[in-house]
Amino acid sequence: MRHFLHLLDLTGEQISELLTEAIRFKAARARRALPKPLADRVIALVFEKPSLRTRVSFESAILQLGGSSLYLAGADVGLGWRESNADIARTLNQFVDAVVLRVFKQSTLDELARWSSIPIVNGLSDLEHPCQALADVMTIVELFGTVAGKTVTFVGDGNNVSRSLAVAVGKLGGTFILSAPAGYGFDAEFTQWYATNIGNPLSEISDPTAAVAHADVIYTDVWTSMGQEAEREKRLKDFTGYQVNESLLAKAPSHTKVLHCLPAHRDEEITDGVMESPASVVFQQAGNRMYAQMAVLAKLVS
Amino acid sequence: MRHFLHLLDLTGEQISELLTEAIRFKAARARRALPKPLADRVIALVFEKPSLRTRVSFESAILQLGGSSLYLAGADVGLGWRESNADIARTLNQFVDAVVLRVFKQSTLDELARWSSIPIVNGLSDLEHPCQALADVMTIVELFGTVAGKTVTFVGDGNNVSRSLAVAVGKLGGTFILSAPAGYGFDAEFTQWYATNIGNPLSEISDPTAAVAHADVIYTDVWTSMGQEAEREKRLKDFTGYQVNESLLAKAPSHTKVLHCLPAHRDEEITDGVMESPASVVFQQAGNRMYAQMAVLAKLVS
Amino acid sequence: MRHFLHLLDLTGEQISELLTEAIRFKAARARRALPKPLADRVIALVFEKPSLRTRVSFESAILQLGGSSLYLAGADVGLGWRESNADIARTLNQFVDAVVLRVFKQSTLDELARWSSIPIVNGLSDLEHPCQALADVMTIVELFGTVAGKTVTFVGDGNNVSRSLAVAVGKLGGTFILSAPAGYGFDAEFTQWYATNIGNPLSEISDPTAAVAHADVIYTDVWTSMGQEAEREKRLKDFTGYQVNESLLAKAPSHTKVLHCLPAHRDEEITDGVMESPASVVFQQAGNRMYAQMAVLAKLVS
Repeated sequence: MRHFLHLLDLTGEQISELLTEAIRFKAARARRALPKPLADRVIALVFEKPSLRTRVSFESAILQLGGSSLYLAGADVGLGWRESNADIARTLNQFVDAVVLRVFKQSTLDELARWSSIPIVNGLSDLEHPCQALADVMTIVELFGTVAGKTVTFVGDGNNVSRSLAVAVGKLGGTFILSAPAGYGFDAEFTQWYATNIGNPLSEISDPTAAVAHADVIYTDVWTSMGQEAEREKRLKDFTGYQVNESLLAKAPSHTKVLHCLPAHRDEEITDGVMESPASVVFQQAGNRMYAQMAVLAKLVS
Repeated sequence: MRHFLHLLDLTGEQISELLTEAIRFKAARARRALPKPLADRVIALVFEKPSLRTRVSFESAILQLGGSSLYLAGADVGLGWRESNADIARTLNQFVDAVVLRVFKQSTLDELARWSSIPIVNGLSDLEHPCQALADVMTIVELFGTVAGKTVTFVGDGNNVSRSLAVAVGKLGGTFILSAPAGYGFDAEFTQWYATNIGNPLSEISDPTAAVAHADVIYTDVWTSMGQEAEREKRLKDFTGYQVNESLLAKAPSHTKVLHCLPAHRDEEITDGVMESPASVVFQQAGNRMYAQMAVLAKLVS
Repeated sequence: MRHFLHLLDLTGEQISELLTEAIRFKAARARRALPKPLADRVIALVFEKPSLRTRVSFESAILQLGGSSLYLAGADVGLGWRESNADIARTLNQFVDAVVLRVFKQSTLDELARWSSIPIVNGLSDLEHPCQALADVMTIVELFGTVAGKTVTFVGDGNNVSRSLAVAVGKLGGTFILSAPAGYGFDAEFTQWYATNIGNPLSEISDPTAAVAHADVIYTDVWTSMGQEAEREKRLKDFTGYQVNESLLAKAPSHTKVLHCLPAHRDEEITDGVMESPASVVFQQAGNRMYAQMAVLAKLVS
């Protein structure tokens, strides 16, 4: 592992190792006994769009592992327009020990990685959200001891979050079900890739009630992500019936837990009642971002 | 003390303890021997409006006590609009050890505190500026050995700065006089609260000359704060005669010192001559922000 | 050396000492054995315009030498308009141990320095770019063992970069040639200063082919700097024929190396082919910014 760009290339074993490390870091922090594998290392964060969770969880992870973080807004860096990505990568190579990026396009990440002698971490792109997926499967392990044999139903858009989660769940031996309105499912290329590379089948079940019937975990995300505001009216209409609410939760097994990558639009994709119910573990899940990222950074930088 | 939201709830004894700590920190820094009570702690700063003094004094305080700081612009966090304050609080709980906020409305602070398992610090709100007030009374202690029995005359607006200062001075046994034009005094609720809770009476004396006659300290602040620009013309007119200038200073005792929380609009609320006179201790006072905040943070986070 | 505002006041010996330190820091970093001369120190960066290289190289330098850095955007500080430079300087004096500034006008730096009890570092101004020049001569020393007796030809604008470089090269006993279109040369005051203060003559040779004939180093910079966008069309026309391309490089000795302070506008002032050729050492040069700045900061702050 030189970079952490997407989950597709990792084996289930590699993902498991990261989870083990993440869980170890979480326990160590609770004892105020975190190791300092990033001591004397400087890690830059370059974010093309601002973020609360991604930024704070990464910066705090870096700082608590003994490193230093440098947050750079994308506009100040001018990725690809103020100068070429190749030049930016070769400049950052000189100054820092790793770069975490939150980019509009996965291709920016891939291009920077091509020119980087230091590790590049995908903090979020249009195609993947691998650190979120790590935190998600870590949460499932905390809840159920394992992902293998568990069923995760994502009610919502076939977006970066659900793609990465589908890969992580599948690689760890779980079953992933996407319940999306027509036109919002995964693309054919991804479905094809999944069928070829993952043992367990990927199901798409458009009826949410049927999709959650055997779910150990129900997961949802906002219907309109940042950058899609123009589609908001259409999306609100298209996703009608895909709300994770008390009535849908009642169709799932009683032990089912609810995840959401946040921020949530309450009473849109999820009701306030479900968010605040005992089934919801969304803040535990949010906290796990930090530990998952500690594992990734400690693995890459040392 | 779980949070540091306003001075109203603190006893004079608690304020005195913080001052003792602050003075100890100042002496330790002068010897380059600061302790590291914030080692391994990460403290987030969330600022709805930018600031030089508040930001730098907090960040430097945190760093010098061995902690790490994360500065987040309010727009990037989206307090209360990108997601609810309750969700933001419960997310930050997972990642950091305390949060310092500079907010437009005290109610934002109070709401975040309600959902926070980690300490919340008021870096400045519309109603209170408690860290400034701590620095102010610390400066008075440095100048006169004590606040008890001293008279502090604030010439200007009955705003967040003067309210917090009035509380701090009163709780420490000093006398507070507000000299404001009609319509800019304290509201009835605050005056009432003061009469009930503070031994010494709160005086409002609209004539600045009379108000400074027995002042040990004259304090002023800008007439138009950030966010009040639309009222600027009216305020300039209404505050005519309330300038702290050489002539007003001559009406005060010869030992009187002048404080200002900065930034100053020279030759508006205070003349350049008074700012630069031996009576002015405004930079000593500015520096004390850092030590006061060290005391607050060390008390809350450990 | 109390501040580091411009190279004009430094002796060649002082510059050499900084280079020796910079080279020592580079070797120490390669061994992961950097000393921590900035331990417990907090250094503020105040940047009136954003920057990738300047910011990251300074912050990483500070962090790796054990210090803490505070990055402040100029707009948040309001240099000279939100409050006076004198007040800002005297406030920062209280909180931090040094300030690095990237300013529009050298006069801002000079004024802040006048009121500062702590060191002020010129991170870039309209008149000088002394840290860049240090990195440049450091690169020349790495390439050729010395600057003395070497010829550096700058093809382009008589701007802050070329001025500082001319001074550094001249003070170290090298020969500096500027090859600029008519109207873009150095001003008379600078040329005069150079003739009086530097042993070696400063040449201006408008024909680039003649100017590079004996060059050990060819250096170029963008034709239109930030803030000059309105002049872009005119500058593109005026600098025609001043591109550093394969054909110009062929007119120089075969051992000639090419430097650029970056960011580059490829195929404008320099061709992509030259940037990527073995003659180009631009990323080594970029990296040296960090080591040069380590030397400056360690010298000033301790």
